[in-house]
Amino acid sequence: MTKQDSLTTSQDNAPSVLGRRRFMNTAALAGLATVVACTDKGTPAAGAAAPASGAAAPAASGHEIAGLHPKPGELDTYYGLWSGGHTGDMRVFGMPSGREIHRIPCFVPDALVGWGITNESRKVMGTKPDGTLKYTVGDTHHVHASYKDGNYDGRYAWINDKINARLARVRLDYFICDKITELPNVQGFHGIFPDKRDPVDPKINYTTRVFCGGEFSIPLPNVPTEDGSKYHSLFTCVDAETMEVRWQVLIDGNCDLVATSYDGKLAATNQYNTEMGVHYEDMMSAERDACLFFNVARIEEAVKAGKFKTIGDSKVPVVDGTRASNQEATKALTAYVSVPKNPHGVNASPDQKYFICSGKLSPTATVIDVSRVLEWFDGKLAKIDDAIVAEVELGLGPLHTAFDGRGNAFTTLFLDSQIVKWNVEAAIKFHNGDKNAKYVVDRLDVQYQPGHLNASQSETVAADGKFLAVGCKFSKDRFLPVGPLHPENEQFIDISGEKMVLLQDHPVRPEPHDFIIFKRELLHPKQVYALDDFSLAIKDPKESGVFRNGKKVTVKITSQAPAFSLREFKLKKGDEVTLILTNLDKIEDLTHGFAIPKYNVNFIVNPQETASVTFVADKPGVFWCYCTHFCHALHLEMRSRMIVEA
Amino acid sequence: MTKQDSLTTSQDNAPSVLGRRRFMNTAALAGLATVVACTDKGTPAAGAAAPASGAAAPAASGHEIAGLHPKPGELDTYYGLWSGGHTGDMRVFGMPSGREIHRIPCFVPDALVGWGITNESRKVMGTKPDGTLKYTVGDTHHVHASYKDGNYDGRYAWINDKINARLARVRLDYFICDKITELPNVQGFHGIFPDKRDPVDPKINYTTRVFCGGEFSIPLPNVPTEDGSKYHSLFTCVDAETMEVRWQVLIDGNCDLVATSYDGKLAATNQYNTEMGVHYEDMMSAERDACLFFNVARIEEAVKAGKFKTIGDSKVPVVDGTRASNQEATKALTAYVSVPKNPHGVNASPDQKYFICSGKLSPTATVIDVSRVLEWFDGKLAKIDDAIVAEVELGLGPLHTAFDGRGNAFTTLFLDSQIVKWNVEAAIKFHNGDKNAKYVVDRLDVQYQPGHLNASQSETVAADGKFLAVGCKFSKDRFLPVGPLHPENEQFIDISGEKMVLLQDHPVRPEPHDFIIFKRELLHPKQVYALDDFSLAIKDPKESGVFRNGKKVTVKITSQAPAFSLREFKLKKGDEVTLILTNLDKIEDLTHGFAIPKYNVNFIVNPQETASVTFVADKPGVFWCYCTHFCHALHLEMRSRMIVEA
Repeated sequence: MTKQDSLTTSQDNAPSVLGRRRFMNTAALAGLATVVACTDKGTPAAGAAAPASGAAAPAASGHEIAGLHPKPGELDTYYGLWSGGHTGDMRVFGMPSGREIHRIPCFVPDALVGWGITNESRKVMGTKPDGTLKYTVGDTHHVHASYKDGNYDGRYAWINDKINARLARVRLDYFICDKITELPNVQGFHGIFPDKRDPVDPKINYTTRVFCGGEFSIPLPNVPTEDGSKYHSLFTCVDAETMEVRWQVLIDGNCDLVATSYDGKLAATNQYNTEMGVHYEDMMSAERDACLFFNVARIEEAVKAGKFKTIGDSKVPVVDGTRASNQEATKALTAYVSVPKNPHGVNASPDQKYFICSGKLSPTATVIDVSRVLEWFDGKLAKIDDAIVAEVELGLGPLHTAFDGRGNAFTTLFLDSQIVKWNVEAAIKFHNGDKNAKYVVDRLDVQYQPGHLNASQSETVAADGKFLAVGCKFSKDRFLPVGPLHPENEQFIDISGEKMVLLQDHPVRPEPHDFIIFKRELLHPKQVYALDDFSLAIKDPKESGVFRNGKKVTVKITSQAPAFSLREFKLKKGDEVTLILTNLDKIEDLTHGFAIPKYNVNFIVNPQETASVTFVADKPGVFWCYCTHFCHALHLEMRSRMIVEA
Repeated sequence: MTKQDSLTTSQDNAPSVLGRRRFMNTAALAGLATVVACTDKGTPAAGAAAPASGAAAPAASGHEIAGLHPKPGELDTYYGLWSGGHTGDMRVFGMPSGREIHRIPCFVPDALVGWGITNESRKVMGTKPDGTLKYTVGDTHHVHASYKDGNYDGRYAWINDKINARLARVRLDYFICDKITELPNVQGFHGIFPDKRDPVDPKINYTTRVFCGGEFSIPLPNVPTEDGSKYHSLFTCVDAETMEVRWQVLIDGNCDLVATSYDGKLAATNQYNTEMGVHYEDMMSAERDACLFFNVARIEEAVKAGKFKTIGDSKVPVVDGTRASNQEATKALTAYVSVPKNPHGVNASPDQKYFICSGKLSPTATVIDVSRVLEWFDGKLAKIDDAIVAEVELGLGPLHTAFDGRGNAFTTLFLDSQIVKWNVEAAIKFHNGDKNAKYVVDRLDVQYQPGHLNASQSETVAADGKFLAVGCKFSKDRFLPVGPLHPENEQFIDISGEKMVLLQDHPVRPEPHDFIIFKRELLHPKQVYALDDFSLAIKDPKESGVFRNGKKVTVKITSQAPAFSLREFKLKKGDEVTLILTNLDKIEDLTHGFAIPKYNVNFIVNPQETASVTFVADKPGVFWCYCTHFCHALHLEMRSRMIVEA
């Protein structure tokens, strides 16, 4: 097959539509023809492709999505939490409109909020001994939220930073990041997923752990060596409340994405480099890689029993999850289910039965039966690969899978630039020999090269099959040109009917990877802080003033539109100043800002919030501190004069 | 009148609709009742307000705007350039959809692009002697673009940073910031506007200057003093090409917004604090403040004649534009036209005839005839205030004005949360005594507290009256709740018919202030760089390698999907490393990223771009540098192993 070809399975009877394939002849495919393997099921028909339905998608009957664009004053009906990619934040979208209503800074400073500027945010972000921020870059990939009884409970969301192996937690009451944990001995922290309940205690029907997949294998401890056997990856469990690392598992191969079972017993990660290659050519020599399952209860028993080691300076217990040490099923901590070539993506179906892995370099999806994996751990299944109940062809470059709660799965095909809708039970029948079982339900061209997708409520027991978002990695010609850096194209698709209907293209700053979409009723945000939440709160303007202790000076200020409590304050050159600002305004949306020219200080205080900054008064002169957040007709006049005497 | 009242002029016959006024009873108004002055024209009728047309805006006849939301695959028809507020960037919207298609980092680091990380961007941003960035915060307010023959020519846009008095230029071919200039002796740099042609040379029919208004008066030079007479503001002219400061004008009062005449002869700034007060109560004691005009040609003659001083370390010539020194019209460099109480906003009408100033604390707009201001400078007008051809009541808290090119003006009313559409020539007739002249054409409630507004092509001779955007400072209940920090609400309004029609609410990250909207045909962006644009470009992968000169090491790498030219490179602990990366991919949208875990390095290279970073290899170990920008099916496998030996 040539690189322009699209794989068509026996499931398709679609006419060839090659026109739109002009975009496929790009470097996104270059060289891939030689590495894409076809399984022994079905014969690819060269040159055939699915019908194009992009721009000219017809209105299909049976569809429910109306009011995609809310009229002025109408609210969206779903929240979307998007990873912000390299901007290091979590983005909040109103759905289905796709309007960005918030960015929650996590790993990267945010000059609006003062994230990375205020003492409070710097404590969350982490600083070096010299007081500067430890990191100012990030690469967020995955967003997932806390569960209760299999649905989101509105407490927390988590997001990862791949570059520096950090996990951030976001409080969903105030939509702020409150804790960040750096995982020890991990490089390329990729997938995350919270557990959905405790594997042992039935009363704990909510999230208490977050699982984190380490992607890059490194020497452990990290001393340079060319001995490949010294390179390993770790799978990490973080406590959802304390955000401390509970334990890690040393594994063979790497971790990519992560998924968890609804019963709390299993976590899983797909592995694209079981070869343990260090060059990319070496990473795709094997025909099959793996989906690696973790038996959570057994791992925690092993930790409790002291069956662990530690690595380098880290005190975190590390148990042995390698293949060689886990051959005996009834004692195994881990189980390696084989899946075809460099899989990317593992997702748990909302009927709680299956984990689905996509082949990436194989055109297949593999359906793994959760109950059979548990049977293997119990010694009741001879071979772990017998947990595979289907392995069917979908198209070229399958990556991630979402669900509609009606038995259908939706998988992105990176190379085909398509979403394929397929029926899981029909796929199982087909895999079992029923060649009349039509598992492919529909295909939709997307623009272009889709990565993650997710459907409304897809990863919960309440999957509702309303609509779906897909993160396309290339937008090419879909938006007005804005120079060499293109936006990504998040496309929204109506999945309420038999056929998928493309609703809209939505440009976003590169590059979100993953996201979740859930009903707005599941969240109960607070829009005004409580003064008592802040230990430094200045509760009365009368407490304002300049308090000197040698060279250490504390400046206490309050804000009430349109004035700061101090109209001016005097400092001496060389003072180490901590400025504390409490916003005493109580009215929703009445935020103030505080900027000090030439002192690199700017931050906001929301209603009833307190924030502080510390700086050295090293430049003499008059500096007009001013409110940066429009608050009142006299906002421009809202200033305080900082006088630094030489 | 009480604080809930809306001012209604004799122009209105609208029924009272008090329901929506519940939002007006907020601190945004608190205390204002005592400071809002009514002029002697018209009598405010308590309790009467304009009809609400917010959420339930009816379709009005005669409107042209269709396809507000482009179908998938369709392109927007206008560009919008928005200031990014405290995020320190310029935002690019597709209009009329309001979709954000790009953010151009300027004053604040951007972890996606590597802005503030790469050597190239750090040079634009400016560093301290220790190599750290001089500033990492910003507060952008105004965006304006270069002109030719009264319309945009697609070369440059400029944006200001109020906090640190910086002006950034954006190249509109590549949509990147290429130069930043810090204005000397300026604090609170607020308004900007490019000139539209040269005041003297008719061949120069395009922008060669950018005018910058200094808002906060400070001691000049900045040595703390309580002597108010030592406090002054400066009006600054920057060369559009070199971005060097040409000259400054010492003035009485402050500068707020800036506008320029179409003939190139005049620049103007409105002044809200002619009292030179340092506390906000002092800033509103006078009943009239000013719109200050600058005679550009005369100022440049004075500079050429050596009639200037310099301030402190700055070498920039500063001419004397104070009132006392400019009483003689035929020699004056400046002219102070009086306008009512704390004006905010000055805008030049597209018919080239008028400058319009809004009263903010006066319910009026003042229309100033450009030709009469020129007559005064020529000694042909007795009193400069005779240049005022209208001063009419519009409503409470008038701020900024846009135009439809058909003789109508649209002014935001901050306190009334309205836009008022009014006819300029009718207002002049009314002012001249024709009480039957109905100058108010329509009113539209907006949600809530509007600041800037702008119409499509409004500030050009090609104003087309299609649609208008308005930046509402409070969104309150208009979007799903996302915690204490609300988005701003940019509303889009159809102005193609007699009545305004609210099209949509559009949430944005706080807080854009100003923006321009123009036809997409005016821009011709480039989407692939030229290798030769970068002096460090590595033109052949064979040039890659590690080049050592003692402790100084240069690492040269190229990228071509899905691989970096170096699969690994070795360093020694303590090396000072400059890593140069050229993206040899030529295909549009094929951007690569380069992240080094734990080294706080992440940046992108667009097609044919070269970028470099410099860091000290202070941590021994194996570090997987990886591509952060999805580029290929084997993107995850695209890595280079950095080995730092102890």
